[in-house]
Amino acid sequence: MSTTTHAIAAAAPGGPLAPATIERRDLRPGDVLIDVAYVGICHSDIHQVNQEWGTAIFPMVPGHEIAGVVAAVGADVTKYQVGDRVGVGCMVDSCGECEYCLAGTEQFCVKGAVLTYNAVGYDGEPTYGGYSRQIVVKDAFVCRIPEGIGLDVAAPLLCAGITTYSPLRQWGTGPGKKVAVVGLGGLGHLAVKLAVAMGAEVTVLSQSLKKQEDGLRLGAKSYFATGDPSTFDLLEHRFDLILNTVSSDLPIDSYLSLLRVGGAMVNVGAPPNPQSYNVFSLIAGNNVLAGSSIGGIAETQELLDFCAQHGLGAEIEKISADQINPAYERVANSDVRYRFVIDASTIGA
Amino acid sequence: MSTTTHAIAAAAPGGPLAPATIERRDLRPGDVLIDVAYVGICHSDIHQVNQEWGTAIFPMVPGHEIAGVVAAVGADVTKYQVGDRVGVGCMVDSCGECEYCLAGTEQFCVKGAVLTYNAVGYDGEPTYGGYSRQIVVKDAFVCRIPEGIGLDVAAPLLCAGITTYSPLRQWGTGPGKKVAVVGLGGLGHLAVKLAVAMGAEVTVLSQSLKKQEDGLRLGAKSYFATGDPSTFDLLEHRFDLILNTVSSDLPIDSYLSLLRVGGAMVNVGAPPNPQSYNVFSLIAGNNVLAGSSIGGIAETQELLDFCAQHGLGAEIEKISADQINPAYERVANSDVRYRFVIDASTIGA
Repeated sequence: MSTTTHAIAAAAPGGPLAPATIERRDLRPGDVLIDVAYVGICHSDIHQVNQEWGTAIFPMVPGHEIAGVVAAVGADVTKYQVGDRVGVGCMVDSCGECEYCLAGTEQFCVKGAVLTYNAVGYDGEPTYGGYSRQIVVKDAFVCRIPEGIGLDVAAPLLCAGITTYSPLRQWGTGPGKKVAVVGLGGLGHLAVKLAVAMGAEVTVLSQSLKKQEDGLRLGAKSYFATGDPSTFDLLEHRFDLILNTVSSDLPIDSYLSLLRVGGAMVNVGAPPNPQSYNVFSLIAGNNVLAGSSIGGIAETQELLDFCAQHGLGAEIEKISADQINPAYERVANSDVRYRFVIDASTIGA
Repeated sequence: MSTTTHAIAAAAPGGPLAPATIERRDLRPGDVLIDVAYVGICHSDIHQVNQEWGTAIFPMVPGHEIAGVVAAVGADVTKYQVGDRVGVGCMVDSCGECEYCLAGTEQFCVKGAVLTYNAVGYDGEPTYGGYSRQIVVKDAFVCRIPEGIGLDVAAPLLCAGITTYSPLRQWGTGPGKKVAVVGLGGLGHLAVKLAVAMGAEVTVLSQSLKKQEDGLRLGAKSYFATGDPSTFDLLEHRFDLILNTVSSDLPIDSYLSLLRVGGAMVNVGAPPNPQSYNVFSLIAGNNVLAGSSIGGIAETQELLDFCAQHGLGAEIEKISADQINPAYERVANSDVRYRFVIDASTIGA
């Protein structure tokens, strides 16, 4: 048994995205039915639709930055009630038994976490994401969105937010720390806001000074153009942490030269090409080059609570369902300040 | 004023090493005069003599793995007395005032730590290392060698030992941790002994199985040949820490695939060529690629105390001063088990 719901789907690799209907499963005892209010457009949606990250499953309903309201709950659900404001991020299931699941880092589940879309659930059914009027998700993968954050500006927190929050926390961002954020896009602008809220002194390193005014408005103390070679001399040994949110090739040794002793450059942006570095750049100052993947469910809830406490959400451009295809073009051209969020009430309307 | 002492020096780039006499300064109030008993041959001695790390100062007296006995102390020295067993490592001075010196990490001194040889002291005089009958060193850069470690097997601890001890400690080596040591040479064999003494389960990853018996004797639980491609499949996601002690090019992504979630590959060996990696190899499991440089004086003392407590020293081949040149050849060919140590009483004898 299942319920039909309106969605926006790519029928085949490359799109376009178009109205469709999909089936959502009837509620199992632990399930939550969510009326989607807003869903963010993540750059990875575009990579997946274009099948740039390996073979994908079509039709595809993207969307893993989901904010909405609980419409119904299964018999065993006690954590949520109808009317609760909730969010769903990149995962909708995991084994729940391995050391990583038990540690609250479901993203590293040994059996493999089930992604919110373009994946196959443990039940053998394909998963469909949040570009949809409704979604059914196991309660353990649903987070609470506290009062005080709009659902629209909360949606991007579920992927872009947690992806930057997790490494900022892990690598000790806080008062007295100097943090550089590379790239002021969907991830970068949230990294700036989060690091500032954590009490760090934040610098934006962007290709140009085009978005300087925005960066400073978001709380950065300074803003430098990496296109200007003098930037690297000026900022030598300045930072405790460099959070790299861009997916283009970077001169890694130049960035490592900006780190203080013991400082880390952590990548959440992943360029497709191999990157090159000189080992001396790491040895000379006991430095670190690291990567970070999304975050676990408990940490995502922590992020949402942190954002509510600090009155912090994404900077968004709200669009209707019929604007998704041009929005994809604009995201591909880095022409969005700073996240498109789809008003889900316009899907199938 | 100064005192003449016998030494072994390279008169010009490329050597050979030959007997010479050098001047040691008269004791300043904070100085310690040490009768050198043993001095290790570090691979970096050979790089420096051959001027492979930039312009060097000649004549050069190498040697920064120095163990000996205090022969005299300056007026203000209270920490050491004549007859004390002491060691000197890679540094003989630093500013003492910057944040790194104050934190006990003199190797990162902002003014620049003065290296034990091939450097110029703050007094403008060149420094000469431990291939010498005597050396004069500021007391703050002298460590105590506890009873229970022979001075001969202690000497290599002052560089090879601290260079591996520091990252092992920094990256959480201990009971329940799985540590891989890449390369079983001067640094690697000490890394194995130290990590075993710290309680970790240790695996050696070496090009071939040639030294397998030694590796297991030193306490490693297993030993794999990296020349065998099946090794990388077999050991996937096995290690919390990989300590790389080799200076040759490595397939970094293959090594990163051996790490558990959150695990780190830390390099103390520095290949001259840039290395290449795929950022996804770091992101997928929140992994780390790091470097580590020697260690501070307090940490070196900690290491010496740790070694005494665990009855642990280097595996050495003891040589006399006239065997240094052929020993250099053998080190360059990785033909030493595992550290040459010069009997300093044979210098100028």
